[in-house]
Amino acid sequence: MLGPNQYGKAETRLVLVRRGGPEHSLVDLNVSVALAGDLADTHLTGDNAKVLPTDTQRNTVYAFAREHGISTVEDFGLLLARHFVSSAPSVSQARVSIDSYGWDRLGPHSFARTGAGVRTAVVTASGSDTWVVSGVRDLVLLNTTDSEFHGFIRDRYTTLAETSDRILATAVDASWRHSVDGEDWDAGYEAARSALIGAFVDTYSLSLQQTLYAMGSAVLQAVPSIVEVRLSLPNRHHFLLDLAPFGLDNPGEVFFAADRPYGLIEGAVLRDDAPAAGLAWSLHPYDGDR
Amino acid sequence: MLGPNQYGKAETRLVLVRRGGPEHSLVDLNVSVALAGDLADTHLTGDNAKVLPTDTQRNTVYAFAREHGISTVEDFGLLLARHFVSSAPSVSQARVSIDSYGWDRLGPHSFARTGAGVRTAVVTASGSDTWVVSGVRDLVLLNTTDSEFHGFIRDRYTTLAETSDRILATAVDASWRHSVDGEDWDAGYEAARSALIGAFVDTYSLSLQQTLYAMGSAVLQAVPSIVEVRLSLPNRHHFLLDLAPFGLDNPGEVFFAADRPYGLIEGAVLRDDAPAAGLAWSLHPYDGDR
Amino acid sequence: MLGPNQYGKAETRLVLVRRGGPEHSLVDLNVSVALAGDLADTHLTGDNAKVLPTDTQRNTVYAFAREHGISTVEDFGLLLARHFVSSAPSVSQARVSIDSYGWDRLGPHSFARTGAGVRTAVVTASGSDTWVVSGVRDLVLLNTTDSEFHGFIRDRYTTLAETSDRILATAVDASWRHSVDGEDWDAGYEAARSALIGAFVDTYSLSLQQTLYAMGSAVLQAVPSIVEVRLSLPNRHHFLLDLAPFGLDNPGEVFFAADRPYGLIEGAVLRDDAPAAGLAWSLHPYDGDR
Amino acid sequence: MLGPNQYGKAETRLVLVRRGGPEHSLVDLNVSVALAGDLADTHLTGDNAKVLPTDTQRNTVYAFAREHGISTVEDFGLLLARHFVSSAPSVSQARVSIDSYGWDRLGPHSFARTGAGVRTAVVTASGSDTWVVSGVRDLVLLNTTDSEFHGFIRDRYTTLAETSDRILATAVDASWRHSVDGEDWDAGYEAARSALIGAFVDTYSLSLQQTLYAMGSAVLQAVPSIVEVRLSLPNRHHFLLDLAPFGLDNPGEVFFAADRPYGLIEGAVLRDDAPAAGLAWSLHPYDGDR
Repeated sequence: MLGPNQYGKAETRLVLVRRGGPEHSLVDLNVSVALAGDLADTHLTGDNAKVLPTDTQRNTVYAFAREHGISTVEDFGLLLARHFVSSAPSVSQARVSIDSYGWDRLGPHSFARTGAGVRTAVVTASGSDTWVVSGVRDLVLLNTTDSEFHGFIRDRYTTLAETSDRILATAVDASWRHSVDGEDWDAGYEAARSALIGAFVDTYSLSLQQTLYAMGSAVLQAVPSIVEVRLSLPNRHHFLLDLAPFGLDNPGEVFFAADRPYGLIEGAVLRDDAPAAGLAWSLHPYDGDR
Repeated sequence: MLGPNQYGKAETRLVLVRRGGPEHSLVDLNVSVALAGDLADTHLTGDNAKVLPTDTQRNTVYAFAREHGISTVEDFGLLLARHFVSSAPSVSQARVSIDSYGWDRLGPHSFARTGAGVRTAVVTASGSDTWVVSGVRDLVLLNTTDSEFHGFIRDRYTTLAETSDRILATAVDASWRHSVDGEDWDAGYEAARSALIGAFVDTYSLSLQQTLYAMGSAVLQAVPSIVEVRLSLPNRHHFLLDLAPFGLDNPGEVFFAADRPYGLIEGAVLRDDAPAAGLAWSLHPYDGDR
Repeated sequence: MLGPNQYGKAETRLVLVRRGGPEHSLVDLNVSVALAGDLADTHLTGDNAKVLPTDTQRNTVYAFAREHGISTVEDFGLLLARHFVSSAPSVSQARVSIDSYGWDRLGPHSFARTGAGVRTAVVTASGSDTWVVSGVRDLVLLNTTDSEFHGFIRDRYTTLAETSDRILATAVDASWRHSVDGEDWDAGYEAARSALIGAFVDTYSLSLQQTLYAMGSAVLQAVPSIVEVRLSLPNRHHFLLDLAPFGLDNPGEVFFAADRPYGLIEGAVLRDDAPAAGLAWSLHPYDGDR
Repeated sequence: MLGPNQYGKAETRLVLVRRGGPEHSLVDLNVSVALAGDLADTHLTGDNAKVLPTDTQRNTVYAFAREHGISTVEDFGLLLARHFVSSAPSVSQARVSIDSYGWDRLGPHSFARTGAGVRTAVVTASGSDTWVVSGVRDLVLLNTTDSEFHGFIRDRYTTLAETSDRILATAVDASWRHSVDGEDWDAGYEAARSALIGAFVDTYSLSLQQTLYAMGSAVLQAVPSIVEVRLSLPNRHHFLLDLAPFGLDNPGEVFFAADRPYGLIEGAVLRDDAPAAGLAWSLHPYDGDR
């Protein structure tokens, strides 16, 4: 029996230059499309009469950039997702996931890639319904102090010492679900990103979970139209080195930044009255429950 | 409001040498743990009294390897997952995800890393219930012929030519759900992996979806206790080069292997009478539907 | 016969927090050490009496960070390299290579990782001689116009069209050799980096080679004590898409950013009176000429 | 002043299918070209009259694959390098670097990617002279015992304990220089690779340097026409875990496989009568000595 399925063109790299004057602007995207619908035939018999080729999906991404321009990644995603669900009767759901790479202006037509996080948008359409999730990932933050960790469960396998002062570092991967699909996406992104950073900076942290919850809450407070925030925060451990063998103290100064293993803290923060998520987080939300 | 959440130690790298004779054996794992349960306090107030530290989780992985040995990754995952849900009242669910790297024997105590795919296992426990998912990823397969693609939807954005002979290449990422948790895991893995490869090789393919379905079906046929197979198959495009400008033909011989974009075909194949998946695929199966 | 050889500890990840007041500062380094000298015994017989273990090298990196602090990566490299060549009679040459990751300040003890290039330093010591090379890598720059490419050789295998307007994009990997070892390293770095960026922005480019030469020359002009600049510039191709099949023009707006293949342009720019490079670029400079 | 420079097309991904019968064969390459010569004009003025575009280099790689086939990577590299130095008066040196990915046969036209090392070749031409270097990289080997490390220098920064039994693991990166350019490349490759593995397995190791020297010597012994071997061997540390806090011993069984830092051991082994290396290892062998 064929279960949930989808297909599409992943990672179409699109760079759009806007030349409407002496000063150019730049949009740099990685666009992935996934479609679902009446796809049993191609799976069961290889009959592709209901398949919109992934090659066509890529062409559409490029053509739409020229035809409609790109105001925001959310709006571009909405345009594309709505197009795909109306492009063929067999396509009932479409999801467009976009990574947007930031560039700092150096001159009228010159730019340098920024590294402080990648802006993301995931837009889903099903019939006339749409869901918009915005986010940021690879935003690496670090506090050198104001982080403790103690009072935890102790069992036979516990060796960790309690600490009242540690480095807290993470690479933020955050996504937030909007309740409307016509807001000022750029303003919302900036407000949400600032809220995440502000909460990381200002929270005196007793656990990374506490910081996660503060970050999610701050986004909900900052942007009324956001109804849910999901965060995935790796705990990038920095271990204080024992320099006593060399006759040296180490009062919180010299650390080893470890690669693996790392803690991974994941959680959602949502409004009490958040509407149902529908297809916002997955084209197949009942996956786990068949 | 705090939504679904989990935390744990990710990517604990464990190498176990078995020295029970002149011939050593080697187990090389990357183990990730995720726990869920009564975790509101640490999120809301930073009170960690119900938190089993990720450091302790790592210690437990290493200690269990010594105490209990590792017969199969599935059994090791079951041991760990059952331990974690009984370790503290606050931990109600545990998920243990293991990557197992293969090594070929070169001598009594010498080995070479194989590259043909990584074996995986994801084991979940909730109370006394458990779910076991096994799999393989990064298994790169290629057919030089017996692959066609035509008869698809044509619209304004179509430029793709139909083809009756193309290269079909993919990096298999497959997972399969077991209905029982006491089977011969190694035999099941070998049978499932062979079935995947056999179906890829033997299917005359009219679409990668057709190949996907054939691969999933073959696993279900090969191993009765497997009830569902999920596949994620990137279509690694190989483009035939136009050598006419150089006065040369190119009868299916010289190809450009592209990186991006790529097609991505995903789907599940399951038995008609497959039991409910429960937490097999996610610790929070209702995620999308709140 | 044993030929040129070296060994050392690679990629020691060191994070140093300076806590000298309410405002903390952060140094985040990846330090690699390579030593050469009288190492025949360990190769030929396994006698390690002349080997300073790589573990000790790592310890030394951490201890020196505490004992001496880190003013600049160049000075820290000089301290370490001089220490290693005086640490044991068998160690005659030492090379210390440092990557320094940038962090933007968010608060008194809070930081965000920047992504706009990694600062580098490679310091070599041999007896009482030292050489210092500074640099930057992964600095991604792009001009949307003012780049042409034409007038090139045409042969049987030429299909490239000449262009008078293209995107020029690269990830700068630049290193510069100093003639003295006591300058203001931070000021020199800022001046050299600015010169690289300024030349990329201001050069109306007829080839990436021309831009490379302009960038190297600008560094030499900006910092008198720098005597040689080496640049490795991948040409990250952006291909203008043909949208005519969709009834659309494309006046330099919509591009495909390709991954592979890419052009790779490498070259050195040096002063007429640059002193001999000695061991600045390699511990074994005669490698190719035995 | 313009110093040493070169340019070319990097990472052209070429897949060649040979269809000369019911059984297909597969060649999967990543080809990089670098050219040097009379390139001052393009650097100084942007005049490209002496520049063979990197786009043309890529076309040539594909066209040659069709015109001449690919018997071995070394022969294909020789064909290409000789072509480039005769293609234009301005091109005096050419280097062709090829990675060859291995595939295991699954059927008449079906293959699985192997992971046990990538075969490499670097061919250089200057006028009528040529140099051929073959090699292998990413060949990951591990011995669970028969490795010791003791008797090393002890200083103030030493904490490493001596050991008479440790895991020895590395990812072999080896290159070997041939004295002739018309040998049986495939047989030479197999013999050299086997010699590397055999020496790693059979050497009772007192240091990774000793193993390195044994591996290089074994290649020289196995293939008379090879005159020099260069090896770069990361020491992938496996740390024995202290399980005493959990009431467990650990007699060489449970290890933590660390990512960073790692030791890096590099060295050359060559015949007493090895001819001069010329341009075998670098297009600019005097680089370090200006």
